[in-house]
Amino acid sequence: MNLILLEPADLLDPASARLTGPRAAHVREVLRAAAGDTIRVGQLDGPLGVGTVQSQSSDEVILTCQWESAIPPRPAVDLLLAVPRPKVLKRLWAQLAALGVGRIALVNAARVERFYFDSHVIQPDFYRPLLIEGLQQARDTRLPEVSVHRAFRPFVEDELDGLFGPGARLVAHPWTEGRLDPPSQGSGVASGWTTGPKSARVLLAVGPEGGWVPFELDLLQARGFRPVGLGPRTLRTDTACVALLAMVHAARGAGGLPEGPISPTLTA
Amino acid sequence: MNLILLEPADLLDPASARLTGPRAAHVREVLRAAAGDTIRVGQLDGPLGVGTVQSQSSDEVILTCQWESAIPPRPAVDLLLAVPRPKVLKRLWAQLAALGVGRIALVNAARVERFYFDSHVIQPDFYRPLLIEGLQQARDTRLPEVSVHRAFRPFVEDELDGLFGPGARLVAHPWTEGRLDPPSQGSGVASGWTTGPKSARVLLAVGPEGGWVPFELDLLQARGFRPVGLGPRTLRTDTACVALLAMVHAARGAGGLPEGPISPTLTA
Repeated sequence: MNLILLEPADLLDPASARLTGPRAAHVREVLRAAAGDTIRVGQLDGPLGVGTVQSQSSDEVILTCQWESAIPPRPAVDLLLAVPRPKVLKRLWAQLAALGVGRIALVNAARVERFYFDSHVIQPDFYRPLLIEGLQQARDTRLPEVSVHRAFRPFVEDELDGLFGPGARLVAHPWTEGRLDPPSQGSGVASGWTTGPKSARVLLAVGPEGGWVPFELDLLQARGFRPVGLGPRTLRTDTACVALLAMVHAARGAGGLPEGPISPTLTA
Repeated sequence: MNLILLEPADLLDPASARLTGPRAAHVREVLRAAAGDTIRVGQLDGPLGVGTVQSQSSDEVILTCQWESAIPPRPAVDLLLAVPRPKVLKRLWAQLAALGVGRIALVNAARVERFYFDSHVIQPDFYRPLLIEGLQQARDTRLPEVSVHRAFRPFVEDELDGLFGPGARLVAHPWTEGRLDPPSQGSGVASGWTTGPKSARVLLAVGPEGGWVPFELDLLQARGFRPVGLGPRTLRTDTACVALLAMVHAARGAGGLPEGPISPTLTA
């Protein structure tokens, strides 16, 4: 825990907070903070700050807080994710929040099993604490917004544009030749990697472990998604999501994503 | 399971094999393969191939196998990893094998807890099946070689060069300014990304969650490791390993890693 996130109910007034439960135990037993010590704090979806321990007892810690004036920007990468196996999704929540995702839309797809939608791992009571765990790991305050969509086609055709708005769109698909790679010098496509405005949002679509079916891939491409792959190795959804999100963030940080097609000439 | 890996004991002769246990159940219940159907097979550390189901019963499957003439190359990326928390390392094994790692050296570091070395998760009996699971996911046959080193300084000074040989060396460290990013066009450092020979091996060192201590970082830099980071977000070791390995593989695939220092000008 590299940051302690406060919920509105934790605030006694704008400049002081009371921690109880595991967070109070963390301050006492892991950080070993005594009265007068300072710890990193943040308000959920609000500013980062510094908390000074005023007092503590066996079950609570009282902090006075100073807050930064600006709220961290929402991460500029969004994720459209075919619902993974519950075991895999369970492992993924905290990592998604740690890597930085603005919005997560969980969608159905032909190769998604129906029973995945009945799992407790897609319920807010289950995933919200895991998202907060990831934010506290990465020192962010912006909770990813999550929505669940049980019908692929109506969602993509009628809701997707309203939910995500403009920006670059990429669809990950196993065995795709277009790779999300740094460009080779002199390959003739390097300029494509630097034309995207740095502020643009990126929406990344990641399919089921068996891949999207052709109808789904066609529909996504018709809505502006460009296929990217991760080379010849087929990865589990959680591994692929982490790899792709890290690469999209890195590509954005280094000058934006390409506006044009990701050319197969990028393939190694 | 996108490939069924055979161990020497599974081979009845060079062109036929007998599967039992979970792999036989997988052929029967997941692949639903009947006599005459073909499935992807591989020999551990040997060639990939195709197996044709000859017969099956409730507890075994007999295959005739045709093998490719070449053995897949060992992945060109190696990992020097400060022993992570057992819970994290447990999650990491299969993902490392799936992403492709030639050799994994688990090392001690100042911020590694001593009891991590007593955990069953660093025992071959525990991790070997997980590495095989990762290879079967990614359709590879080359089992990563794993070694454990309880003393950091003697290992780095006396054993590291012999174990890993020549190649690019990178050390991941939180808050490092040099980022493993695609270069910005016109940043003046883009050429650095394409001068490494594509065939060169890369050795990536990943520290404890609290980071390397200055002595360790200095010693690694003295042995040719160049620091790289992943931006301002602090990630769990498993998330960071997956992100960094994916990016190193992508950078190699796109023309090699830079020979010179990874300049802070690469920072977003």
